[in-house]
Amino acid sequence: MMILNQIVESINQVREKNPLVHNMTNVVVTNFTANGLYALGASPVMAYAKEEVADMAQMAGALVLNIGTLKEEDVEAMLIAGKSANEHGVPVIFDPVGAGATVYRTETSCRILDELNVSVIRGNAAELANVIGEQSEIKGVDGGSGRHNSVELAEKAAKQLDTIVVMTGKEDVITDGQSTFIGRNGHPMLTKVTGTGCLLSSVVGAFAAVEKNLVLACVSAVSVYGVAAEFAAEQSAKEGPGSFQIEFLNQLAKVSAKHLDERLAIKKK
Amino acid sequence: MMILNQIVESINQVREKNPLVHNMTNVVVTNFTANGLYALGASPVMAYAKEEVADMAQMAGALVLNIGTLKEEDVEAMLIAGKSANEHGVPVIFDPVGAGATVYRTETSCRILDELNVSVIRGNAAELANVIGEQSEIKGVDGGSGRHNSVELAEKAAKQLDTIVVMTGKEDVITDGQSTFIGRNGHPMLTKVTGTGCLLSSVVGAFAAVEKNLVLACVSAVSVYGVAAEFAAEQSAKEGPGSFQIEFLNQLAKVSAKHLDERLAIKKK
Amino acid sequence: MMILNQIVESINQVREKNPLVHNMTNVVVTNFTANGLYALGASPVMAYAKEEVADMAQMAGALVLNIGTLKEEDVEAMLIAGKSANEHGVPVIFDPVGAGATVYRTETSCRILDELNVSVIRGNAAELANVIGEQSEIKGVDGGSGRHNSVELAEKAAKQLDTIVVMTGKEDVITDGQSTFIGRNGHPMLTKVTGTGCLLSSVVGAFAAVEKNLVLACVSAVSVYGVAAEFAAEQSAKEGPGSFQIEFLNQLAKVSAKHLDERLAIKKK
Repeated sequence: MMILNQIVESINQVREKNPLVHNMTNVVVTNFTANGLYALGASPVMAYAKEEVADMAQMAGALVLNIGTLKEEDVEAMLIAGKSANEHGVPVIFDPVGAGATVYRTETSCRILDELNVSVIRGNAAELANVIGEQSEIKGVDGGSGRHNSVELAEKAAKQLDTIVVMTGKEDVITDGQSTFIGRNGHPMLTKVTGTGCLLSSVVGAFAAVEKNLVLACVSAVSVYGVAAEFAAEQSAKEGPGSFQIEFLNQLAKVSAKHLDERLAIKKK
Repeated sequence: MMILNQIVESINQVREKNPLVHNMTNVVVTNFTANGLYALGASPVMAYAKEEVADMAQMAGALVLNIGTLKEEDVEAMLIAGKSANEHGVPVIFDPVGAGATVYRTETSCRILDELNVSVIRGNAAELANVIGEQSEIKGVDGGSGRHNSVELAEKAAKQLDTIVVMTGKEDVITDGQSTFIGRNGHPMLTKVTGTGCLLSSVVGAFAAVEKNLVLACVSAVSVYGVAAEFAAEQSAKEGPGSFQIEFLNQLAKVSAKHLDERLAIKKK
Repeated sequence: MMILNQIVESINQVREKNPLVHNMTNVVVTNFTANGLYALGASPVMAYAKEEVADMAQMAGALVLNIGTLKEEDVEAMLIAGKSANEHGVPVIFDPVGAGATVYRTETSCRILDELNVSVIRGNAAELANVIGEQSEIKGVDGGSGRHNSVELAEKAAKQLDTIVVMTGKEDVITDGQSTFIGRNGHPMLTKVTGTGCLLSSVVGAFAAVEKNLVLACVSAVSVYGVAAEFAAEQSAKEGPGSFQIEFLNQLAKVSAKHLDERLAIKKK
């Protein structure tokens, strides 16, 4: 199966090359994000100061911008980092956490999308709907569920924003507006642990650093992530969300060609 | 037993309604706080920017203010959020971490209590003594122990601050100055893990979001928390504080009417 | 064996006195640092505000400065805290995370070393080389490997900076430029978990708070840390990096005279 082989090749590349992923992310998930990237085989770095983010983004394999707990100074630094990444051909992954929950988040998301060349946007349906001006309910930073035809919404967002969209939910949709993949790996336990969406955005960064075909990089990231979650849930879901969080890190380090072959559930639309 | 039934009803409400709890907390405990709230059944959100905290607090079921690693800009944002919460009838929980350890923390605590209508203040004896101007030793952010008659101190603080006091320690005291409850659930392992006091303040927020009788909400929060800690310690205390931290998250998700019935140790004074 | 006895005495002192360690550290590792210090037996406190850091540093047993995610305002606060520590005889531990990765980190490191009396600097070979102006490659915040004669580099840094150097890597080197110790405890799993270097710097702080001979304090910190890592890896390395992180916290709480006697691998050059 062609997709399977490409995904296996991508995760092998991440583990061999240990790409540097520059994360400007929120204070809730920094530790989990760094440990998740290490577990996967990537090299995380966090840097926020205006004085250094251009330098750090330039040397990274990918830059991940996440507005989960942004303050005004962080927005400015994200724009500096993003422009540096754009100038040096470093892919920029954007996670519009909670877009739609407050006007500030929606406007900041639009500003980032407007001023930067974003390679991939990763969010749930509510966040993406809000970013492209569709009405959608959102409570806090957790998206609403099931009110959209997600494939249609994702493709619309990809075309309107001229970027690759990774829309996660019960089904995951990856699309550049032309070719679209639908994934069914993953597990509901992911919704019981904070930062699993944020970490996925950073994992997309790790794959984007080693695979130039960014749609394929996203397909690989989403698949590896979902398969790891399934194995983690089987090992730990009965114990509870604390144990799942830890076992998920273990499984990100373990996920193999065999695991992917057994479970991969992604197809081209 | 009436209290037991009310506590069971409250935890069921939290799990059914998944109340949004807006936390403005310290950088040490953000991840643990978010995961603890998810485990309990609540929906955590963290937001700190002056530009959005009024909007976020307004839509939340409770606002939790924690000064564990405050900076000046955070104080300003906390006051904006708190005023919004007050205007919209959203209960405000205040955790004066380390009040008394530095003049800045004591003064900031007093400023918050002065400018906002705080529904519940949750702290240890040393913090509460300092907030109401009683002399007390405090080392860093961990309270001293056993030098106060805690019931008397808690009731005095409740009357003086005109708020509900949750004073935690070997015994937990919940009082509005009129009716007072004394709880004996919990476990010393809680003192070996950072942020267990901070998370309790956020758990009070989760219960305050679903139970209008705020004294009862506090009684429920303290009891559920203490019983979960007891089961977690039995599962993991021999392994050590790392395992306890994880098992405690598991137990927050598991605590049931049966667990509470077996262990509940709270009574009205 | 004399060193063994001194190390056992030092860890016993930490557990009896629970020294307050004031950490100004990065947002990735705050929770892990606090939990690691608690597990060891120390009392962590984090405080960052210019308004209070002088007060907090003054009452602490050690001050730990870590530039992992610094912003300009943090640098200013670190200098205020450091000057207060210097005035009151509180040892200052400095961790130049990522020095050399960006000009900003290198310059900030030099500024801190210039304006403060730093008691101990803890870093990897690449960071220390960059701080003293030796050319070295560094990728993100993870040091390069094996390109230096580490003992020579550590001794040169100690003499040039007039401070104690703890240089960690495959071998750990502790030196004040005169007497030099080489340690071989530890485990590669430490490189799979974020913040293990940062936590070690804070653990050095805990030992420096109870042992006036700071070279001995560093020898103790590095040895206890490495031995705990070995036991943790034996318990958990097969499961993965998530489980190792948790088991390492458990083992920091458990490491005993017997464990040290079995495994201690440190010698004077």
